Amino acid sequence: MTFPRMLSCLLAPMLVLSMHDSAASETPRPAYAWSTDEAFDPGTIPAYGGKHDAVYARIDADIDAHVAHLQRWVRQRSISAQDDGIRDMARLLADDLHALGFAEVEVVETPGHPGVLGWYDAGAERTLVVYMMYDVQPIEENWRIDDPFAGELVEHELGTVLMARGATNQKGPQRAFLNAVDAMIATHGTLPVNLYVVAEGEEELGSPNFGKVIEPWLDRLRKADGAFFPMNIQMADGKASLNLGVKGIVYFELEAKGGEWGGPSKAEIHGSMKALVDSPTLRLVQAIASMTTPDGNTIVIPGYYDAVAVPTVEQQRLVNALARDANDAAVQRALGVSRWIGGMEGREAIVRNLFDPTLNVDGLWSGYTGEGVKTILPHMATAKIDSRLPPGLEPEASYRMIRGHLDANGFDEIELRPMSGYPAASTSVDAPLVQAFLGVFNKYGVDTRVSPWLAGSAPFYQFTRTLGLPFVFGGLGHGAGAHAPDEYMLIRPAQGVGAAGLADIEKSYVDILHALSEGL
Amino acid sequence: MTFPRMLSCLLAPMLVLSMHDSAASETPRPAYAWSTDEAFDPGTIPAYGGKHDAVYARIDADIDAHVAHLQRWVRQRSISAQDDGIRDMARLLADDLHALGFAEVEVVETPGHPGVLGWYDAGAERTLVVYMMYDVQPIEENWRIDDPFAGELVEHELGTVLMARGATNQKGPQRAFLNAVDAMIATHGTLPVNLYVVAEGEEELGSPNFGKVIEPWLDRLRKADGAFFPMNIQMADGKASLNLGVKGIVYFELEAKGGEWGGPSKAEIHGSMKALVDSPTLRLVQAIASMTTPDGNTIVIPGYYDAVAVPTVEQQRLVNALARDANDAAVQRALGVSRWIGGMEGREAIVRNLFDPTLNVDGLWSGYTGEGVKTILPHMATAKIDSRLPPGLEPEASYRMIRGHLDANGFDEIELRPMSGYPAASTSVDAPLVQAFLGVFNKYGVDTRVSPWLAGSAPFYQFTRTLGLPFVFGGLGHGAGAHAPDEYMLIRPAQGVGAAGLADIEKSYVDILHALSEGL
Repeated sequence: MTFPRMLSCLLAPMLVLSMHDSAASETPRPAYAWSTDEAFDPGTIPAYGGKHDAVYARIDADIDAHVAHLQRWVRQRSISAQDDGIRDMARLLADDLHALGFAEVEVVETPGHPGVLGWYDAGAERTLVVYMMYDVQPIEENWRIDDPFAGELVEHELGTVLMARGATNQKGPQRAFLNAVDAMIATHGTLPVNLYVVAEGEEELGSPNFGKVIEPWLDRLRKADGAFFPMNIQMADGKASLNLGVKGIVYFELEAKGGEWGGPSKAEIHGSMKALVDSPTLRLVQAIASMTTPDGNTIVIPGYYDAVAVPTVEQQRLVNALARDANDAAVQRALGVSRWIGGMEGREAIVRNLFDPTLNVDGLWSGYTGEGVKTILPHMATAKIDSRLPPGLEPEASYRMIRGHLDANGFDEIELRPMSGYPAASTSVDAPLVQAFLGVFNKYGVDTRVSPWLAGSAPFYQFTRTLGLPFVFGGLGHGAGAHAPDEYMLIRPAQGVGAAGLADIEKSYVDILHALSEGL
Repeated sequence: MTFPRMLSCLLAPMLVLSMHDSAASETPRPAYAWSTDEAFDPGTIPAYGGKHDAVYARIDADIDAHVAHLQRWVRQRSISAQDDGIRDMARLLADDLHALGFAEVEVVETPGHPGVLGWYDAGAERTLVVYMMYDVQPIEENWRIDDPFAGELVEHELGTVLMARGATNQKGPQRAFLNAVDAMIATHGTLPVNLYVVAEGEEELGSPNFGKVIEPWLDRLRKADGAFFPMNIQMADGKASLNLGVKGIVYFELEAKGGEWGGPSKAEIHGSMKALVDSPTLRLVQAIASMTTPDGNTIVIPGYYDAVAVPTVEQQRLVNALARDANDAAVQRALGVSRWIGGMEGREAIVRNLFDPTLNVDGLWSGYTGEGVKTILPHMATAKIDSRLPPGLEPEASYRMIRGHLDANGFDEIELRPMSGYPAASTSVDAPLVQAFLGVFNKYGVDTRVSPWLAGSAPFYQFTRTLGLPFVFGGLGHGAGAHAPDEYMLIRPAQGVGAAGLADIEKSYVDILHALSEGL
């Protein structure tokens, strides 16, 4: 029996080697078990039936003044990255809240730009926290208008738009919401719900001090019934995408630098020294490479996929609905991407996009990056890396596993510098707050796609976790060009354009506050 | 017997995995067999005994005019990278050769800067090819003198120096050689050897057209007896390092870019898309990482070490001599390096530096490299990489193995753009040309270290392979600051400084030409 025994022993290492060569099969991305093919249908939620004709009429009568409020907001510069107009905008917001009848308004100092807190006591049973960001992105080249802060109304193929920095991200929808509040108070003298406004001036900087902004009122805010961020979520054709959360993120730098371990420590040296001198650049490359399979698509850091949650039936139903009208080719065309990873499409692509943690190199640099030939052995190399965290994978765990993996593989000398980190946030589609929104959307005949969360990240855990509230970011309305030239918000749609204009946006906010007061 | 059989089968894959984890032991760098501990001693070569007092006296009498020639050369700008003064310098060199009595002088046009060819027919038996570069590096910041082209004599701790761009790299030693030629012709009306001068104006650009420069006279040049590049190779204390060759090099860019295979093809996209979209940056990182062990120090491209030559007894004797007064700590201090790879030192470090092929990342860049957080999935990533080639490893073979390795590992989409490539060059220490140099060095009491070649690269294969000649780059004299501020050449050494001054440099060149005429 010697021969068969030898054979099986020879085969064993071959199998292991073959598994190692195809690392993807050794450490696959999660397989997501699926238990239902039912699809969520927002049309089954009864359309909101309330009528508030007096307020609607007031909005129609005041619409020019309401447009002027949006213009006033965008004309006030508030570029957080350049500290341009920030305090004036914080003051403008605080003054507007005062003028609307907010009993308490505070400008909250932070280590960065100030926040603004407001409290409107309607004596109502329900309380809504309204999140606002009053800062905007810097200005890029190539705007078609001379001054992105002029607050111009521009004739656009979709109708009349407000074209300005901040028009849709996020001053337009936020002031539209306050216009609705204004019309309700002007008509009835009060609101159907109490309101907190919690505003920051550093959203475009990653909200580093938002925790400080809400801290003074933390106990009060936690007693609210839900949180909301006004946002234009309609496409030009009127279809809306409501995302019930966001992924978390860790964003960090990895850096290799010569030192006691080896490599040039003071400056680059001649490239011919490589036979004698360790290369920090190659060490960084090896460290990054050690974190994924050769295709760059599967994370091989031990345990990294372990905490990823199994899709619930509710999430499966949402994904099934999204998959029904998925158009991968159109999204790929828009992005300039020929194919998704491995040629996947449809539901698989949606599930992976939502549930897979990612590891992505945002930037990478070392040594000589100019034209032509320069032979140096650089003394340092740096990478910017982000990992998107679905619900279940905490930033602390992510950092711990990454550092542990580097150390376990001998990359002790690679410095890991955390720059940002926060967990995912998500709210159930069954939450009364979400149901109220969808009911109002149905009243306006909006075809709404609902996703359990976005693949992108935002620190909305501050609402779902710090405050413990259901959280919705959305609303009728259409805009485009956030972080880009020619940013706009649609004010008066042209004939046949499906997206709501300013008057309908404001009326839908009126309905939402009433729906919340009734059903939250 | 079932249990032991299972056990051995379980152990087998563990062993394989453990081998894979320690890739260095799987694919080690070459082990260099050593057969002798004898050390080469240049002191055993008889000191050159010729006396040429009339020429020496002429040099001493004319030394101020000779210094003025060096000043005239460095005052003529000739920055090849900026095409600054190039044609004027080519003309100046051609005119000087004419004035010295070179019968044929040609300015050779190339696709780049022109070359200069000169022929001095002494009617002698022996013929020497003298290589010259007439271009210089651009000017950096932080020179202590106002004008690096003023040709100033400066009082330095070592004595009087000519401080200027090109003073030591390479106008000073080249014109010093022509001063010696001038003195010999002035004294005796002719030279003991015939001379070719082959000069280029693109050495600092990597000599892309040097082949074109020598092409018109190729057949004539191949009939010469040796080739020589005047160079100051003394340290300030007088010790000299004579290197009998150089490594070759391939220098190339690797680039990953989104395309049909996947990834963003037009521009960066949002970083959160990583779950769906391949990352060109991670692919480049993986491709580079696949070429070395995790420590970045052993090349795992199949066959890459196979062509490396075994050190000959002659090379072993040279290395043994170098190892006797190796001072790793001093070199490491100068470079700002704490240790050589793996803590090696002495002879092992010398052997690896000379004989190991290298793989070095000179530069690397992708995506966002600014301050702070920006989350993008870049559409391209680029690396500049060089590999130093010891004798035996040809650039064509190197490129073929690298491309083959990338393809074999599935990195077909990674573009490899060759930017440079040439083989090593080396001349035997036993060549009469080398023996003549060492004999003259011994006459001047110079303590000379002789290395089989440099770890650095230069296209000297044009002499050893294209022309098929023994080649020496060296000479008495001391300078510093090539490619750096405050470049100088020592003209009149201070008391106690061991390096030769201009007069002795020129006298040694007189001796070398005579030694060649007698012994070549």
